[in-house]
Amino acid sequence: MAVAIEIVAVGNELLLGDVQDTNSNWLCRRFTALGGRVRRVTMVGDEVDTISEVVRAALDRGAQLVVTTGGLGPTDDDLTLRAVARALDRPLREHPTARAWVAATYAELARRGHVASAEVTPSRAKMAQLPAGAEPLANGVGAAPGALLRRDDGSIVVSLPGVPDELMDIVRGALRPYLTALFGQGAYEEWRARVDSGDESVLAPILSEVASRHPDVYIKSRAKRFGLGVTFMVSLSARGEDPAQARARLQAAWRALEQALDRAGIAARLEEGSVGGDDRCAP
Amino acid sequence: MAVAIEIVAVGNELLLGDVQDTNSNWLCRRFTALGGRVRRVTMVGDEVDTISEVVRAALDRGAQLVVTTGGLGPTDDDLTLRAVARALDRPLREHPTARAWVAATYAELARRGHVASAEVTPSRAKMAQLPAGAEPLANGVGAAPGALLRRDDGSIVVSLPGVPDELMDIVRGALRPYLTALFGQGAYEEWRARVDSGDESVLAPILSEVASRHPDVYIKSRAKRFGLGVTFMVSLSARGEDPAQARARLQAAWRALEQALDRAGIAARLEEGSVGGDDRCAP
Repeated sequence: MAVAIEIVAVGNELLLGDVQDTNSNWLCRRFTALGGRVRRVTMVGDEVDTISEVVRAALDRGAQLVVTTGGLGPTDDDLTLRAVARALDRPLREHPTARAWVAATYAELARRGHVASAEVTPSRAKMAQLPAGAEPLANGVGAAPGALLRRDDGSIVVSLPGVPDELMDIVRGALRPYLTALFGQGAYEEWRARVDSGDESVLAPILSEVASRHPDVYIKSRAKRFGLGVTFMVSLSARGEDPAQARARLQAAWRALEQALDRAGIAARLEEGSVGGDDRCAP
Repeated sequence: MAVAIEIVAVGNELLLGDVQDTNSNWLCRRFTALGGRVRRVTMVGDEVDTISEVVRAALDRGAQLVVTTGGLGPTDDDLTLRAVARALDRPLREHPTARAWVAATYAELARRGHVASAEVTPSRAKMAQLPAGAEPLANGVGAAPGALLRRDDGSIVVSLPGVPDELMDIVRGALRPYLTALFGQGAYEEWRARVDSGDESVLAPILSEVASRHPDVYIKSRAKRFGLGVTFMVSLSARGEDPAQARARLQAAWRALEQALDRAGIAARLEEGSVGGDDRCAP
């Protein structure tokens, strides 16, 4: 079974529409490529009660990995770690390693003249307050460390900063060994094909029939444009123990689909570069 | 009180990371500009039980407007209206107007040679199956009509297609009178300022203090870059009975913020074009 994942994106600026949440999409691609299955993404505002309730609900639904994004900074509306602590019934505690990282970051920033003082003010120290038992995740780009908390049942809650560069740095760096341990060696492959039919209602029963004969392959169609010269993109994706197994599953489904489309007089071709896993998503 | 809104974005392709959900951000901006408050966005897969449960939960949390996006098309994995019907304990029924629109769309597409036949096949007819009591919303760009359902308590569930052009067409067109009736004449204004401080932990207490004296203004800071030459963007936003009232609130908070920053030796200036509501979001 694929690892069940939920993402909780935190920030009033997201709900106001001021900022497009690109982090969740990046995480979805990455976790999918690692063989995980993101079951839900929930976007909420900077409210401790709401964040806490959503994290709790995700765990109650059986998520093995819950990832929060945003709300780790020094300002009063950065409340995510307080909410995670509440969701897991743990107190917040200053983590000495996190504190040392925050101090080192500001010492370096002060040395370079980017901040006036290296002092670890209460606002800065707040970033080292983690839920008791959490491990800090080094942030190579910004000041706020991430946090990882493993629960007794093996499920994991990870909190990442909302600034995309910082989030990606932690996922590629400090979080990487944890992800490898969690996802193991499973593989995910996706192929995309362009189908020369402007009519999804003709395509639908064909896809449906092929999908029913290949339950290990997920088949989805999407209109590239609706109107003049429209085509449909069909994606086929599969998981396997390794890339070869995933690829063999796709190959079988693709052959069946190509033949069924051919019988209906519809041309289809795989997209350049769509064969094989997404390297950008490799851990 | 601002109208409480929840958005439910439906589609396996979103959770796989194959498609970035831009619809929710567009809707958030628009609803915010109309004076509404989006409280939560939930992204789920193409599963009737899950979609239905999330719509139900949004209504139970007091959402006055629930908007679903995606899952209105002709394929087997387009399940949103079935899920909405279940959430509201209503049967699905073919709506004659919706059926006529679907038939007219395919007649036109067949006439132009984009589809082989104008026949309203079962896959096509499925798009006219709405929850009992729902009104269809005309889609000027694609085949699938939207649907609007008003419940006894006055709350509204709107289902929109996932293709961005189709979604925007319905929001700007068929849905417009309903939105005007729902949101009334309230106004929202937002100003953005660039602050020449590389240090959010110095900025934080200043913003916090100004925010506490101007509770009708929402103040948020965001790093433009962390590292060399970093600046912070501060956004101030307010609602009012009309644009003048919203603007007066912003003016008062901005004056206080400018003075407080000046006392700390930090320069700040409003961004070009940030004063006034977002025209792109006007109904």
